Amino acid sequence: MPQNKPLAIIAGAGPGLGMALAYKLAEENYEVIALSRSQPKEKTENPNIHFKQIDLSNKASVENATRQFVDEYGPPKVIIHNTAQLVIKPFLETQAEEFSATWDAMVHSAVNIFQATLPHMLTAGEGTVIVTGATASLRGGKNFSTFSSAKFALRGLTQSLAREFQPQGIHIAHVILDGIINTNKSRKLHGLDQARMMKAEDIAQAYWHIIQQPKSAWSQELDLRPYQESF
Amino acid sequence: MPQNKPLAIIAGAGPGLGMALAYKLAEENYEVIALSRSQPKEKTENPNIHFKQIDLSNKASVENATRQFVDEYGPPKVIIHNTAQLVIKPFLETQAEEFSATWDAMVHSAVNIFQATLPHMLTAGEGTVIVTGATASLRGGKNFSTFSSAKFALRGLTQSLAREFQPQGIHIAHVILDGIINTNKSRKLHGLDQARMMKAEDIAQAYWHIIQQPKSAWSQELDLRPYQESF
Amino acid sequence: MPQNKPLAIIAGAGPGLGMALAYKLAEENYEVIALSRSQPKEKTENPNIHFKQIDLSNKASVENATRQFVDEYGPPKVIIHNTAQLVIKPFLETQAEEFSATWDAMVHSAVNIFQATLPHMLTAGEGTVIVTGATASLRGGKNFSTFSSAKFALRGLTQSLAREFQPQGIHIAHVILDGIINTNKSRKLHGLDQARMMKAEDIAQAYWHIIQQPKSAWSQELDLRPYQESF
Amino acid sequence: MPQNKPLAIIAGAGPGLGMALAYKLAEENYEVIALSRSQPKEKTENPNIHFKQIDLSNKASVENATRQFVDEYGPPKVIIHNTAQLVIKPFLETQAEEFSATWDAMVHSAVNIFQATLPHMLTAGEGTVIVTGATASLRGGKNFSTFSSAKFALRGLTQSLAREFQPQGIHIAHVILDGIINTNKSRKLHGLDQARMMKAEDIAQAYWHIIQQPKSAWSQELDLRPYQESF
Repeated sequence: MPQNKPLAIIAGAGPGLGMALAYKLAEENYEVIALSRSQPKEKTENPNIHFKQIDLSNKASVENATRQFVDEYGPPKVIIHNTAQLVIKPFLETQAEEFSATWDAMVHSAVNIFQATLPHMLTAGEGTVIVTGATASLRGGKNFSTFSSAKFALRGLTQSLAREFQPQGIHIAHVILDGIINTNKSRKLHGLDQARMMKAEDIAQAYWHIIQQPKSAWSQELDLRPYQESF
Repeated sequence: MPQNKPLAIIAGAGPGLGMALAYKLAEENYEVIALSRSQPKEKTENPNIHFKQIDLSNKASVENATRQFVDEYGPPKVIIHNTAQLVIKPFLETQAEEFSATWDAMVHSAVNIFQATLPHMLTAGEGTVIVTGATASLRGGKNFSTFSSAKFALRGLTQSLAREFQPQGIHIAHVILDGIINTNKSRKLHGLDQARMMKAEDIAQAYWHIIQQPKSAWSQELDLRPYQESF
Repeated sequence: MPQNKPLAIIAGAGPGLGMALAYKLAEENYEVIALSRSQPKEKTENPNIHFKQIDLSNKASVENATRQFVDEYGPPKVIIHNTAQLVIKPFLETQAEEFSATWDAMVHSAVNIFQATLPHMLTAGEGTVIVTGATASLRGGKNFSTFSSAKFALRGLTQSLAREFQPQGIHIAHVILDGIINTNKSRKLHGLDQARMMKAEDIAQAYWHIIQQPKSAWSQELDLRPYQESF
Repeated sequence: MPQNKPLAIIAGAGPGLGMALAYKLAEENYEVIALSRSQPKEKTENPNIHFKQIDLSNKASVENATRQFVDEYGPPKVIIHNTAQLVIKPFLETQAEEFSATWDAMVHSAVNIFQATLPHMLTAGEGTVIVTGATASLRGGKNFSTFSSAKFALRGLTQSLAREFQPQGIHIAHVILDGIINTNKSRKLHGLDQARMMKAEDIAQAYWHIIQQPKSAWSQELDLRPYQESF
């Protein structure tokens, strides 16, 4: 019966890490809601994974969708925020719309999904929230003003939520990915040796470990990088 | 002649630090534009300080105003971003409008004023940009999700701009204020011993030092706190 | 046959985390060498755990012991550095001998065991080194000058080794424990509610996860704290 | 009369920054004690600067010398710790003696001079201690295990002392130099364009600013780098 499986919501279920997380959690017998701006090109056959196209920066849409999921599957046990919109551009050439779009996609989306789901987790008295960060969460970079400001914001948000909600039993973690995830798109873009890239399923394994951490030893932040990465 | 004095623009010229910076720079013989959301309650008699009420989150207003200042006084030599909107509130009680207003006041305002002024600094080949940060720029806090996400964003933005513009001769610094500034308002709010508070004019002195730093030894980040502050 | 089991060396196998790590690795079918300054009060019956009393700050002793272990069990696959000597004392009352003893126990011991074992890991082309850090690895504290300087040093050492050895296939991780581990001794010392303390076996679980991380997604640093801990 | 001038002690008064600090403080009418391992090659004619050759890692020597200075000039108002011993070497080729010598020169020297001088500052109720850090104080590096562990330690020590002594009126600051100081030696070593190097006298200016900071706005940490430096 579906109602017996725990529910996981993945906000940002694109073809790389998002889908790897969906498969991992489905394999661990979660009911998985995979939220994405755009329709996936390839449909998964996995009966535990449910796609939903949604504009995560629209608060009302997120609230409505969450209500439906909770009605159908119960309170979410896992929320993963994994949206990104990579803008790499000289500051003076960046349009106001690019800033807004990046902030909507990366920060407002997180506020919306967390405000919609945390009350259910608090009622259940448990849950795990994981936010995907990047090197740009820790250090600004030339031509990264848009992306880095949004990633920094997300880290400040996550740290604040950890201090607010962890004592109430909700684990809030931030994972810094310092490397390029191996996807069709990134291989074309970076022309990197695949041995130097991160495998999405290996990252998903680390997220799964966070989800399983017992209350006496929770990670708030950890980094992940391929062994050959300079840092 | 006014055109011989260097121009400083202070975005966020409220009664505490903003005005102390305005007086300090006026004293150092700058022409000072003091930008503020609201009309100041007390008018300054200082002929070097020019108030302008402006919505800094409105890009067009900022562009127009900057054009006027540059026409009248020449390219700005100093820009200080000092706006803040302090929201301390449980995450689940924070309205979408409060998030937007905070990010507008603190982050979009910075993007707007820097996009409007940096081209003039680049043409002049020099300039200093200083951003006021806080403890919440480095660490999230319970009930600080709104404020801290904005302050983190501003730090990521500042670091990115430093890496982009410093090699072109524009100094970009971030100052972390770890303490309460002694103002009428903060004394009432915190009930703190004045000896434990920061004097706005002492902070202004540190900003002035940053402005004077020679190109071979620029600070990108420094903290300031009263000697009795725990940290 | 013992030679078929991988070897783990735990430097600092005291009654709390050290022993929990020894049991965890023995359970995962490692041959475990548990190094400690003093004889354990209780002997373990576990045939996979081998105690050795040793002064880790004595380079020759560490080299000799390592040679014996490698002869008997093959190259070590896991090294955990977990020694600590907690000095909490006003700076001006701290004796030169206390600084030296702390540095010997915490930093020289690490240099010695890593210099003795890394060549064997390099030959094998694989291995994991984990260093136990603390809140004092990230922030100094009043009366913590001795302990914190040593913990900072250990973090700088670990980061440097990660950058030097990870590209050669040796995973080097640093774990920040932000909380009190539940032991007989710490319960007496702190008088804390056990629900607010860290369970050594939960921490050991996180170390085990690090050991299992695949090369495409290695953590260099992660924190662990009990859910009710303020930070 | 010499007794009317404030006393500054510079531990590590080599030909680059150390001497620039000595000249700056002498110019500001301090009596300056310049401590160094080796005799300076060129003698200064400045009557306010007094050289003393000393092994700063020898606690008794440092105590004796401090007693003499205080007898002659009164309690020190400024202590600057500026010693360094740069080891850049693969970890496995570094000798135990190199680790010890580096930690003696960089960390024990600091403990010794601070233990000898802080009691006099506490009695006087004021004083400034500045420690020179480096990029390696914040990030480990390949082949930097020795140097970086010592620089991290010094930062942990400085942060701890700041938390212990600032509430008693002693300002404790840490300055991160992220760049190469322009000296005869460094020009030969790095072959860098002088325009990309830091001028020692510009750094000294920033230290002088820290010394002058009023109690309501003390910097605990700041960085300094040349404008063209990548970071």
